[in-house]
Amino acid sequence: MSAGKLHLNAFLMGVGHHEAAWRHPRTNPNALDDVAHFQHLARVAERGRFDSVFLADGVQVWGDVRHSTANRFEPITLLTALAQVTDHIGLIATASTGFSEPYNLARLFASLDHISGGRAGWNIVTTAGDRSAQNFNREVNTEHARRYQRADEFLDVVTALWDSWEDDALVVDAESGVFADESKVHEINHRGEFFAVRGPLNAVRSPQGHPLLVQAGSSEDGKNFAATWAEAVFTAQQTHEEATTFYADLKRRVRAHGRPADSVKVLPGLVPILGSTEAEARRLATELDDLIIPTRAVRQLTELIGVDLTHHPLDQPLPALPPVSHINGAKSRFELVRDLAEREKLTLRQLLGRLGGGRGHQVLAGTPEQIADHIEHWFTTGAADGFNIMAPLLPSGLEEFVDHVVPLLRARDLFRSDYTGHTLREHYGLPRPTSRYTPAATSQRT
Amino acid sequence: MSAGKLHLNAFLMGVGHHEAAWRHPRTNPNALDDVAHFQHLARVAERGRFDSVFLADGVQVWGDVRHSTANRFEPITLLTALAQVTDHIGLIATASTGFSEPYNLARLFASLDHISGGRAGWNIVTTAGDRSAQNFNREVNTEHARRYQRADEFLDVVTALWDSWEDDALVVDAESGVFADESKVHEINHRGEFFAVRGPLNAVRSPQGHPLLVQAGSSEDGKNFAATWAEAVFTAQQTHEEATTFYADLKRRVRAHGRPADSVKVLPGLVPILGSTEAEARRLATELDDLIIPTRAVRQLTELIGVDLTHHPLDQPLPALPPVSHINGAKSRFELVRDLAEREKLTLRQLLGRLGGGRGHQVLAGTPEQIADHIEHWFTTGAADGFNIMAPLLPSGLEEFVDHVVPLLRARDLFRSDYTGHTLREHYGLPRPTSRYTPAATSQRT
Repeated sequence: MSAGKLHLNAFLMGVGHHEAAWRHPRTNPNALDDVAHFQHLARVAERGRFDSVFLADGVQVWGDVRHSTANRFEPITLLTALAQVTDHIGLIATASTGFSEPYNLARLFASLDHISGGRAGWNIVTTAGDRSAQNFNREVNTEHARRYQRADEFLDVVTALWDSWEDDALVVDAESGVFADESKVHEINHRGEFFAVRGPLNAVRSPQGHPLLVQAGSSEDGKNFAATWAEAVFTAQQTHEEATTFYADLKRRVRAHGRPADSVKVLPGLVPILGSTEAEARRLATELDDLIIPTRAVRQLTELIGVDLTHHPLDQPLPALPPVSHINGAKSRFELVRDLAEREKLTLRQLLGRLGGGRGHQVLAGTPEQIADHIEHWFTTGAADGFNIMAPLLPSGLEEFVDHVVPLLRARDLFRSDYTGHTLREHYGLPRPTSRYTPAATSQRT
Repeated sequence: MSAGKLHLNAFLMGVGHHEAAWRHPRTNPNALDDVAHFQHLARVAERGRFDSVFLADGVQVWGDVRHSTANRFEPITLLTALAQVTDHIGLIATASTGFSEPYNLARLFASLDHISGGRAGWNIVTTAGDRSAQNFNREVNTEHARRYQRADEFLDVVTALWDSWEDDALVVDAESGVFADESKVHEINHRGEFFAVRGPLNAVRSPQGHPLLVQAGSSEDGKNFAATWAEAVFTAQQTHEEATTFYADLKRRVRAHGRPADSVKVLPGLVPILGSTEAEARRLATELDDLIIPTRAVRQLTELIGVDLTHHPLDQPLPALPPVSHINGAKSRFELVRDLAEREKLTLRQLLGRLGGGRGHQVLAGTPEQIADHIEHWFTTGAADGFNIMAPLLPSGLEEFVDHVVPLLRARDLFRSDYTGHTLREHYGLPRPTSRYTPAATSQRT
């Protein structure tokens, strides 16, 4: 349970989160090539007073090229374009600590934060999979725990770079010719196991100080990383019981790291398949599942959990899976899929249908009232601080959510009627960090 | 001499190219923080029918923090914002082969090209200086020749990635569920000395195929790199004689690489200090030079040429300089500064005044007619295919150039009255490359 209102993020994925969305008559797959499509989505989410929009990303071609939609846009650049047509909504981009340099990434996010007037967020991923590593001079990817060690040091460096210009470093006195007070611009002189970075960053401090830090890893390493760094957590939870357990566990870890429990917002994914009746919603879900191409879905599942299922018969139960300790990919997603298949005794084909809508995120077909009931239930019972809304079809699914679900949430006093702040941090009710280089006494006085 | 019209690039640098621009009453240093300022500059250049705008960049804080203007924006993101308010003008960003991964940079430029509808260009720099290296895990920078070897292989990888999706790879047949023809999506399987990259890129081929390749190195290595890869070359030339020598030499190298001479456009930098009379222009030049802060300028010169002059007396001639073979920074800029100081027997203070306007680029104070005469002379006598216009004050200097010089160039039939194409390549009269993976027979047939 959260003290304030709930938070909503719109996860923008092409023409919809359902893997067959692009084949459905309610979408236009040519929109994938169209910045205006994504700008429309951002405007719709802003009309709904969402906290933020979010773009996923990776550093390889993902899935089955023949049957999967293909990328055009990189998230930080696309969000820069969305910033030009919106005024309030937060802009969260995925980027990898595994295959970037901290100086470059600190700069890109600082720039997005400057350009958007304080609306940038970074969804931090470590990047699993050998295919990704093979685009960056390596045969195999780094082992799971080591990826998080690198991520941890990466964040040390990036946040120090963001702090390297104090807020009041600029003087800008044309008369004397003093542009900056050099005593407030700091080398960071980081020397660690993975990185040596002198600094300062070649960008003054951005409106939020630090762009919002978001994270989605739900493994042991992932949760500890989140407890250390994250301010919002995207997570896939299939049942209320699992969600409350995850929520309580994460908040406990956050407190154990000396941070207030509400300094991290937990946002489970939700794929709302909306209809004016439950039957209509179920018909849409069935239409979409019928468009799934099994070979593509098996390949995607193989990549998702890191276990090769491409030769497994579709109508048999899953084979015995290796212990999670042998998985070097997304460990928590592996466990979620394994538990779902075991709990419901699903064949491979049935499992594909369950995953096709949201790749492990909860899919809920129903009326706006039913979706609002679910959100209220989870929000008021310690399962969520908000939701990562993953519309199955875009833009229609997001438009319907904004027009029909958001008003119900407002009527129940669960969600804001208008923005009260301007920055992404303000929407999530999170403080603006003080630069680590600003003396504590000074920052208390000002 | 160029067969067609001349080309104009607007080099956008904060509130002006003169190092003291921000102190002059005609600028507003707060505009440095304002995306709208840069959007205005891009619109002015587009109103003038310039081929492109350009943003320089580095990966360190450059110059004297106390007296230099500071960055907010990273070029690729800022140009994405400029793309939203313009329709035709090309958008050229500087990025480093020394401190980026080819997969990441290929993606960012492909994304800018998609977002802008084919207007992206990349100014390729190798990045000199130990200060930069120290932000990327190293104590000293790589040696000059080796930087160019890495750049060469970097370009092999990036252009292969841009080709990895053939133009007609997308099928997008909702009925059959076939999104792409996987036989037209290629792993690049690059294995070289510096990089191993499997591919394909996680972005379909962009409107220009390859974003325009721009380069500014004028050393031996730099000119050979340009002859291999560049399609436009920014260069600093102080005299007509040097400019024609450089121009002929570069075109010869281009032909020696089996490319037509006009496949590379040579654009010397020009800082036009405009006045309605020559005396008025000279007054402005003097006003600006009087605002130079010597300690700042000495430090900038030290970084520019890679020789420490911070303890040299201002009113003495330059000390004996080391041979260029000992310089590991920008070799050609070193030679330009050395030759200028020797030719005109300048003291350090006098040299700072000569460099303050354009850091080695030609500064010309005069009336619009005089500026137009200079451009016509160089363009029609084999010194330039166009110019990189570096307004001393922004926006005023660019507005004056567009309003008073461009009309003269049009009246003399030297410059376009309107755009005839939509992409940056079309503005520069350069062909769209065919993907290396498209069979020649097929590409001839289609």
